[in-house]
Amino acid sequence: MKEIKIGILGLGTVGTGIARLLQENGSLITQRLGATLTLKKAADIDLEKDRGIQFEDGVLTSDADEVVNDPEIDIILEMIGGETIAKDFIIKAINNGKHIVTANKALLASHGNELFKLAAEKGVSIAFEPSVGGCMPIIKTIRESLAGNRIVSICGILNGTCNYILSKITNEGVSFEDALAEAQAEGFAEADPTLDIEGFDTAHKLAILSSIAYGAEINLKDIYVEGISNITAMDIEFADQCGYRIKLLAITKFNGNAIEARIHPTMIPFSNPLSNVNGSLNAVTLSGDAIGEMMLYGHGAGMMPTASAAISDTIDIARDLLFGATTRVPMLSFQKKHIKAIPTQPIDDISGYYYVRFSAIDQPGVLSKISGILGEHSISIKSVHQYEQKLNGVVPIFMLTHHAKESEIQKALAKIASLDITTKQPALIRIEGSS
Amino acid sequence: MKEIKIGILGLGTVGTGIARLLQENGSLITQRLGATLTLKKAADIDLEKDRGIQFEDGVLTSDADEVVNDPEIDIILEMIGGETIAKDFIIKAINNGKHIVTANKALLASHGNELFKLAAEKGVSIAFEPSVGGCMPIIKTIRESLAGNRIVSICGILNGTCNYILSKITNEGVSFEDALAEAQAEGFAEADPTLDIEGFDTAHKLAILSSIAYGAEINLKDIYVEGISNITAMDIEFADQCGYRIKLLAITKFNGNAIEARIHPTMIPFSNPLSNVNGSLNAVTLSGDAIGEMMLYGHGAGMMPTASAAISDTIDIARDLLFGATTRVPMLSFQKKHIKAIPTQPIDDISGYYYVRFSAIDQPGVLSKISGILGEHSISIKSVHQYEQKLNGVVPIFMLTHHAKESEIQKALAKIASLDITTKQPALIRIEGSS
Repeated sequence: MKEIKIGILGLGTVGTGIARLLQENGSLITQRLGATLTLKKAADIDLEKDRGIQFEDGVLTSDADEVVNDPEIDIILEMIGGETIAKDFIIKAINNGKHIVTANKALLASHGNELFKLAAEKGVSIAFEPSVGGCMPIIKTIRESLAGNRIVSICGILNGTCNYILSKITNEGVSFEDALAEAQAEGFAEADPTLDIEGFDTAHKLAILSSIAYGAEINLKDIYVEGISNITAMDIEFADQCGYRIKLLAITKFNGNAIEARIHPTMIPFSNPLSNVNGSLNAVTLSGDAIGEMMLYGHGAGMMPTASAAISDTIDIARDLLFGATTRVPMLSFQKKHIKAIPTQPIDDISGYYYVRFSAIDQPGVLSKISGILGEHSISIKSVHQYEQKLNGVVPIFMLTHHAKESEIQKALAKIASLDITTKQPALIRIEGSS
Repeated sequence: MKEIKIGILGLGTVGTGIARLLQENGSLITQRLGATLTLKKAADIDLEKDRGIQFEDGVLTSDADEVVNDPEIDIILEMIGGETIAKDFIIKAINNGKHIVTANKALLASHGNELFKLAAEKGVSIAFEPSVGGCMPIIKTIRESLAGNRIVSICGILNGTCNYILSKITNEGVSFEDALAEAQAEGFAEADPTLDIEGFDTAHKLAILSSIAYGAEINLKDIYVEGISNITAMDIEFADQCGYRIKLLAITKFNGNAIEARIHPTMIPFSNPLSNVNGSLNAVTLSGDAIGEMMLYGHGAGMMPTASAAISDTIDIARDLLFGATTRVPMLSFQKKHIKAIPTQPIDDISGYYYVRFSAIDQPGVLSKISGILGEHSISIKSVHQYEQKLNGVVPIFMLTHHAKESEIQKALAKIASLDITTKQPALIRIEGSS
């Protein structure tokens, strides 16, 4: 029986899950692969911690170099995270001729171009299915199953923390702050939740997806990013009354010339299947010229779902090794010479439908002033709702617009915000899939 | 530039879609594959028909043997359908050393074991992503993305015609006959819809999925099959009131010893994402020990979605050819020596929750008799609904049971059907995902 030896860097949640999955399903994997996958070395700084599984003698080490320098190891699973030592070890491992499996979206989004270039030079693969969407085979679907399609857009719920919080506000009417506190108490949100709730984690994932979808260089800095921390229960309730759910969506579209890539809270109609994705679950819709629209839905994070994706990538690389077919599928979906810098369309250039909410002084003429300014910017109003109840003499005014330009909306909102009849920054939420 | 030459057998809807997709996205495919896919020959008995695309000179032929015998062609896409000539041509092509891509679920479900055996002997691949779920990468997901998982169950809406009809009855309250007539008028159902509405098409697909999920020989004859032709608007309305949708589900489960495999109308709670899959769309939930549950959702049929799956398979085989890596992924997911005959559990051995409807004479004591017989068979009733309106002196009685054995349910229903207080065969619908 042939044997492929692997090493794990980092025995946190996912690293431990990988070791566990290899132990539990090792013989099943062998029946499918036709070779055994052996965990030769696993490195972590904390070797005392009880991880609930037994490692064979000699496997555990506190020295990551022992893993990346082991000549018998062919595949390194980097589960450290972050952009510092993880990057150093990946570079060392690649230089040692080892293939990489990583869940590190932050690293790939920021330094992917450099790492993929090095891997290509050294003739090894970097696989990254676990970096986006947990167990969902989103990378494989784009790279392989849609290989005959011109991909026109991708739209996804890619951060379980944000979706958990938004679902909580939707279902229980609690405030953002309370929903976040509960998410932290239940382990769905980090102590410092900024990366998640401000949309940066989602942006890392979208950078990876849009690059493999269109054959573009990874370009994190051109993604528009807006998180969910300004979403109120009032917005969600009003959206509900109009037939919408509010989700933090990662959206990318390609018109053949420029890429749109943006992360922001988005109102989507109940008829959109993403609107039914609740709690910490993730989902992605993919649109292609041949397939129309397709959706993947599942656990976007967590120990075993993410370990499943890592093992799937490891088996793929092992199959390539067994057949001498490394780089059989190009890492970034396109052959290297066809990957190019594609311009990104600034958010100001998009147009669409909008929800806006103003906090206005309760006096006659306010609506006329606001709608007058919107009119000056060619924004026509689809519906207005003004409720009677006052919050300290202030009334919320809710509006849905017809099709409008983002740049005009932004200018109009800035003008309205400067009026003394409004008491707070207006709230704006983009609408997708409506007309 | 390297070139891989392919041939198409059958220029019906999907065959034509494949030719069209190659023309429209050929250069994109080359950018991904690193080689060109060239349509060398395409055979159909009708060469006069306007298919809306231009073929290069010499490509079209009315002689399928010209395709399967062409020494330059490496991959044959069989889009004829049926179990007779399609099988003959596939066998000829395999004997000529050609790889096969097929959408022919009926053929694979009935003769797959023979064909896969021959392909293995000849060192070629049979790829069949387009045979199940249209564009959804269900085969690839099971074989590759879940390769580290013990798959425990698969549950799917795999027939667009049935889903269209059931959605129509649900949304418009029309009769089964009217919904079928509309499906036929709109091109969603064949003139002879038996294969679809009686569940056989779904059974072909489930036979393929369960075999690759568990490493089992394909075993069509042990699948329990019940179609949707007895479903009434009354059943759907009652289900709705109880929080359920009725869908034709393909269900397979594996407990490590025996496989459950069944097709039948099924009541599923609104909370199950499959309940929101409407119209001609398909969806599949996959459960594995590591991933938990995952869903794929998309167009399960149609020209371009199915062509997309066929092209994806063709590209996979082309990559294998370019790298000399044929059989890199075993056709049936497991290495040949690990594929075994696994026993199927007869439907009588399952247990679960049930919906039953009786058509009873409107007289006192009827409910007592019915519930008495159910009690004799250890079936306890969760709820009973008896409406006042009479249909020709007959009242429908609706019941939901607690957990019960299928064999006991069947015995009890047979006894109740023989009573002179009931006027028709009782209706039974199995419930999944409830408690």
